[in-house]
Amino acid sequence: MTTEQQVLDRIERARKRAPKVREERVTLAHGAGGKASQTLIDDVFVTAFRNPALDALGDGAVLDLGLGTGVPRLVMTTDSYVVSPVFFPGGDIGDLAVNGTVNDLAVSGARPMHLSAAFILEEGFPIGDLRRIAASMAAAAARAGVAIVTGDTKVVQRGKGDGCYITTAGVGLLDRPEALGVAEVRPGDAVLVSGPIGDHGVTVMLARGDLDLAADLESDTAPLHSIVAALRDAVPGAVRMMRDATRGGVATVLNEIARGAGAAVILDEAAVPVRPAVSGACELLGIDPLYVACEGRFVAVVAEDGAAEALAALRAHPQGADAAVVGRVADDPPGLVLLKTAFGGTRIVDVLVGDPLPRIC
Amino acid sequence: MTTEQQVLDRIERARKRAPKVREERVTLAHGAGGKASQTLIDDVFVTAFRNPALDALGDGAVLDLGLGTGVPRLVMTTDSYVVSPVFFPGGDIGDLAVNGTVNDLAVSGARPMHLSAAFILEEGFPIGDLRRIAASMAAAAARAGVAIVTGDTKVVQRGKGDGCYITTAGVGLLDRPEALGVAEVRPGDAVLVSGPIGDHGVTVMLARGDLDLAADLESDTAPLHSIVAALRDAVPGAVRMMRDATRGGVATVLNEIARGAGAAVILDEAAVPVRPAVSGACELLGIDPLYVACEGRFVAVVAEDGAAEALAALRAHPQGADAAVVGRVADDPPGLVLLKTAFGGTRIVDVLVGDPLPRIC
Repeated sequence: MTTEQQVLDRIERARKRAPKVREERVTLAHGAGGKASQTLIDDVFVTAFRNPALDALGDGAVLDLGLGTGVPRLVMTTDSYVVSPVFFPGGDIGDLAVNGTVNDLAVSGARPMHLSAAFILEEGFPIGDLRRIAASMAAAAARAGVAIVTGDTKVVQRGKGDGCYITTAGVGLLDRPEALGVAEVRPGDAVLVSGPIGDHGVTVMLARGDLDLAADLESDTAPLHSIVAALRDAVPGAVRMMRDATRGGVATVLNEIARGAGAAVILDEAAVPVRPAVSGACELLGIDPLYVACEGRFVAVVAEDGAAEALAALRAHPQGADAAVVGRVADDPPGLVLLKTAFGGTRIVDVLVGDPLPRIC
Repeated sequence: MTTEQQVLDRIERARKRAPKVREERVTLAHGAGGKASQTLIDDVFVTAFRNPALDALGDGAVLDLGLGTGVPRLVMTTDSYVVSPVFFPGGDIGDLAVNGTVNDLAVSGARPMHLSAAFILEEGFPIGDLRRIAASMAAAAARAGVAIVTGDTKVVQRGKGDGCYITTAGVGLLDRPEALGVAEVRPGDAVLVSGPIGDHGVTVMLARGDLDLAADLESDTAPLHSIVAALRDAVPGAVRMMRDATRGGVATVLNEIARGAGAAVILDEAAVPVRPAVSGACELLGIDPLYVACEGRFVAVVAEDGAAEALAALRAHPQGADAAVVGRVADDPPGLVLLKTAFGGTRIVDVLVGDPLPRIC
């Protein structure tokens, strides 16, 4: 078939130009959301699937449905959830899967509306646990005002899965006129986070019980549609872009902003909200909270003159009491994230290498 | 939170009325698409997620986006693919995942447009195999005229997966006026299949090499959008409903029709197209080809006076050379599928119990 051969030839050509995965086999780092994930996506998937809507297999894609200019456009997004354990303080794989897709839509600027849910269950998984997960998904959907409209269930043999994996996809309507995205970011813009970072990742890590460590911590998993709307209502036109800080944490989001905007992000370490329990656990684990996943926090870049009002709007929302301006966008050095430490030093915050916290989401 | 408690109370009440899963743990039969799958879906998922668009977690859901009556509606669908092995004669997990979602949209009456793709990879999976799968997905998307617009990649540790699982979701536009669905089915309607049944399931089974059996067979995996459009163009208004005969096979689809329409489906065994290699393998395996999955065949119910023209349209299409009228809808006995055997007898074709062919898709 000519079309098929053309596609394969195009992929062959694209792969010659793309960054190369050096490993011969998939490693945990390929799923960590950092450097290895990005290379895998660029080499294997983007080269194969390239099309105008494909946003580097990252956040939501804006769909061209050909419905005419008067009709709001749709955003589509998907994520698989393989968190271990499936139940953890503050949530479970079910509300995580609903909130995660709701949040990808919300930070893409869309009003989350409809979700699909596909389950890959391991033979032997308790039906009672599945009931509990389904109820948790239903409650999360009700909170976010979305409907789970379609789904699928597959079962794999014992030892070919790990209890329960869930993949959600979602669609939402872009019903506001403002353009959002890393292309809108300008030097001088303020960088905000909506709350304390790293709660989710550290909570899941501790829930595994591998570490002899207890902390009074809960996952931050939550739907962000309402706080995102509050921010956009407060400073219409001033929000440049938003992204939820999941795998790879805030550091990964900021690196995407710096590279995407061809600008620098200058971060003020003292301004980054981190709970003492999270920084304590991270110190023991030898990881930086900037790389730890949140599931209910987002980074927003806001025009300088809207920053104070944006911060006030976030703090006025029940989910944003600890929101903070954590840095700003600058001209130099382009593509890099710099951290001004509490001691007056400066260091580069690189993209995540390896996978310090596998299967956190 | 009041809303959350209301949701949980509603689920509690719904579960009292729903059919009950008797098992305490998930079994392979819960993923086979038959009786156990249906009970699991009804008990666990439908009770939790119930909303107007939810179509029993079965095929595509029609979305209410509130865009007004002049705008075509959207259909959304999802499926996970866990086929083992990932490569088999005639296809692989990649084109299977694209074709499957394209087909769910097409038989729902929608024009397939945009797909998401989420990967759950097992640590150690060869990157070269992943490249091959991605290329196969891209070729399948090109054939079906759809774009893969967004995605996700997760990696699980060795022994927590099985190489590569893929979940696709898709959206399409309902751009034709005719209503389709089991509610449209009437006694007297003709039941057609678009080609020989069971090729896919038997091919995958043989590819596992567990059986000392070889056959010159290939999976039937293919996109159905074009043959579905040819059928609808030929007999506009006469097509009552369509469904692709995947897990659970043609027998499961016919049972859904009989129960959904409150009518009987009378099947003529001699008219059902089955390749000799498939019937031979099924005989050795002790399974009935009517229960074996196809991935590129569909069942259509067509008004009696359009049946001849519908059959001609299917046969004129490259994918439909062996299409056949295999039965008809009757008043009695309501809810049952009856098979008239080649020897003049009659037997009930029940819904699938157990899972004779696990992980076929």
